[in-house]
Amino acid sequence: MLPYQIIEKKSYGKALTPEEIAFFVNGYTRDDIPDYQMSALLMAIFINGMTNEETLALTKVMLESGDRLDFAAADGFVADKHSTGGVGDKVSLILAPVLAALDIKIPMISGRGLGHTGGTLDKLESIPGFNVNLSGDDFQKMVLTNGVSLIGQTKNICPADKKLYALRDVTATVRSIPLISASIMSKKIAEGIQGLVLDVKTGSGAFMPSYDDSKALAESLVAIGKLYGIQTTALITDMNQPLGRKIGNWLEVEESIAGLQGNGPEDLMMVTLALGAEILQMADPQLSAEDAHKTQLAVIENGAALEKFMTTTRLHGGDTKVLEKPDNHSRATHRVDYPAPRSGSLQTIDTMQLGFLGIELDAGRRKTSDKIDPDTGFVIHKRLGEKVQTNEPLITIHANKKPALDSVMSQMEKVFKIGDEPAHTPTLIYEKIG
Amino acid sequence: MLPYQIIEKKSYGKALTPEEIAFFVNGYTRDDIPDYQMSALLMAIFINGMTNEETLALTKVMLESGDRLDFAAADGFVADKHSTGGVGDKVSLILAPVLAALDIKIPMISGRGLGHTGGTLDKLESIPGFNVNLSGDDFQKMVLTNGVSLIGQTKNICPADKKLYALRDVTATVRSIPLISASIMSKKIAEGIQGLVLDVKTGSGAFMPSYDDSKALAESLVAIGKLYGIQTTALITDMNQPLGRKIGNWLEVEESIAGLQGNGPEDLMMVTLALGAEILQMADPQLSAEDAHKTQLAVIENGAALEKFMTTTRLHGGDTKVLEKPDNHSRATHRVDYPAPRSGSLQTIDTMQLGFLGIELDAGRRKTSDKIDPDTGFVIHKRLGEKVQTNEPLITIHANKKPALDSVMSQMEKVFKIGDEPAHTPTLIYEKIG
Repeated sequence: MLPYQIIEKKSYGKALTPEEIAFFVNGYTRDDIPDYQMSALLMAIFINGMTNEETLALTKVMLESGDRLDFAAADGFVADKHSTGGVGDKVSLILAPVLAALDIKIPMISGRGLGHTGGTLDKLESIPGFNVNLSGDDFQKMVLTNGVSLIGQTKNICPADKKLYALRDVTATVRSIPLISASIMSKKIAEGIQGLVLDVKTGSGAFMPSYDDSKALAESLVAIGKLYGIQTTALITDMNQPLGRKIGNWLEVEESIAGLQGNGPEDLMMVTLALGAEILQMADPQLSAEDAHKTQLAVIENGAALEKFMTTTRLHGGDTKVLEKPDNHSRATHRVDYPAPRSGSLQTIDTMQLGFLGIELDAGRRKTSDKIDPDTGFVIHKRLGEKVQTNEPLITIHANKKPALDSVMSQMEKVFKIGDEPAHTPTLIYEKIG
Repeated sequence: MLPYQIIEKKSYGKALTPEEIAFFVNGYTRDDIPDYQMSALLMAIFINGMTNEETLALTKVMLESGDRLDFAAADGFVADKHSTGGVGDKVSLILAPVLAALDIKIPMISGRGLGHTGGTLDKLESIPGFNVNLSGDDFQKMVLTNGVSLIGQTKNICPADKKLYALRDVTATVRSIPLISASIMSKKIAEGIQGLVLDVKTGSGAFMPSYDDSKALAESLVAIGKLYGIQTTALITDMNQPLGRKIGNWLEVEESIAGLQGNGPEDLMMVTLALGAEILQMADPQLSAEDAHKTQLAVIENGAALEKFMTTTRLHGGDTKVLEKPDNHSRATHRVDYPAPRSGSLQTIDTMQLGFLGIELDAGRRKTSDKIDPDTGFVIHKRLGEKVQTNEPLITIHANKKPALDSVMSQMEKVFKIGDEPAHTPTLIYEKIG
């Protein structure tokens, strides 16, 4: 087998065999195949796609490139939730403690902000002292004893995916359904879970903005999970506007605490509870959807979920004083409203653009080595379909640097479209797959 | 401008601007853009193609990456012939001295064997002492004084193409009409020529086996030449079987000498004279095609063309004793006939496969650093459409290594297809473009 011939085969749109995929990916992981050959193959896959069999073979080789966690010793159902990425998406911060408070074991391996989207790890690190870099062993122990732990991908989990992902990120080959599917699912299968619910975002702030692509991605993810014997479902949820009102690392932790105290914004809580209900119903097939919602609300109301978040933070080395009293946390120096330039109703929000403006405020990264400012971001005041008056605040920009504030302020008119037509309120949860 | 965004744009099939192409190719040539980003872009171009405007912009940036020769001082028409590559294609070795003997100046920058095809430089180097690595200055001087010189691409001629070509060769992005067009034409334009005839091969031994692709390539090449003010035409010629009877480096020089002595095989001479006539008619638009053929035959008959080849060889440091008496040249140890396995008529020759078998004999290279054996190759005895009897020799294998001989012998049955149906004799010259 020659790398050249495998690239050529895919460049003509032919399906690769599992042996060819394993040869190429393993050779690349071992540094036998150079970056420039892998990037040619990635682009051929990006454009010509992969069959389900190829995607499955790619998932398998990435999974088998590293360790798999084993929760056979776990007392209870082991599950995870994964989102394809959005703006203001802090669901994991609420859902993980809620489910752990209900005796579900949650070994959550999360990511950092990517492109215009935020990342759970960056949000957690806005809590002073919170350490997301545990070893696989410590992670496994915390999940067994505490019910939940949240960490980053260790060097032993899917190393092939880690190396491939870095290359995709600089060669414009990220937005590919087979490549995304194999990347997500290899890591999730490595977690050793029994159940998985996927939050596949669609709309102006999603990586896959079109509904058809989002649905195809959801179907691909669910099919792989099931083939690996994991109970898997996906909800396609709206990302035509940020989820919740707050965007930015600490701002999102703050809103998550509110959510765990029963004061979260309606859209955020609806998505969170719907995803949680999926997992609770996998753990107990007798449970009705209604009861699955109620039982989650109960651990929010009685404080058990918030307490689980506090304990988990402490176990990760985090300082819970800022969680108990969010005013104890630092705040951005500049907090300036962007006023509506006209009256009308809010037609569209360019959510991806808003995410990129967050990067200008250092709420996200331009390049891997950039340092995040935990305090910056946005608080949005209007939702799609709502009426606005001229000069009414649409969004508040939280910035620490004046030039960045000015730049973001000047670009904000590209984000919000206000019109005279009666505006559309998007559906929040479109469809369940699986 | 970001490399990432340019790759992404092409990955979605959009046309790049001349500025984007220049930014990317110049950045790559300066080592500012890494191989892995260029290979992703090359694959996106390979699959999604380029518009004529993009191909022209790519040609321009590669041309302007290096020096251009200047033959303003030349006394006479300055022209070149270029072939897209085939098996047994030794036209340049005959045509260059014929045209130089007719006072056309031929600054011929040639290539080495590539994939299954042979290369003029490798053939010339089978003449002991022949040096193809002249400086641009020495080359220019020899063209002005001797009328012809044949060299390899110098480091100052289209360095961007040189770097890109090496990457295409290992990333399966060679067979792309826009990439081939820009690569060929940037080098030809850099030669400072007034006229150019292209020999675009089609059929089982061509890089672009389909007729439609060959024609599209011919049209692309001719269009670029004309836009640069070069008189350009292309002949689409047959490569469903080797050109002439001999394949291999010294074997082809031997057959070329026979051609220059008036004893060349008919197909080889017809293609050579047709290509030469194109250039002679560019130099003198009053000249009829018939007279253009006659005048070439005249310098073959009177020995002027052979004498020009001898002088040119001497000026390049080559030993003409082997040209005067080819038996003075070394010969392969093993010269073994492959007998026809059945009787019938010769239906097809897998000419590309035959070229690859030549590589097993070291008549070509597996990798750039391989050393060529000048003596090995094939002498073919039957042409498409001819009748053959069982055990009649189809081809003679010239080998120096017994294992390679055996391997090639055992694979020869894949090359020749003999059948009962009356077989087809292919057209030799299909069409003129331009």
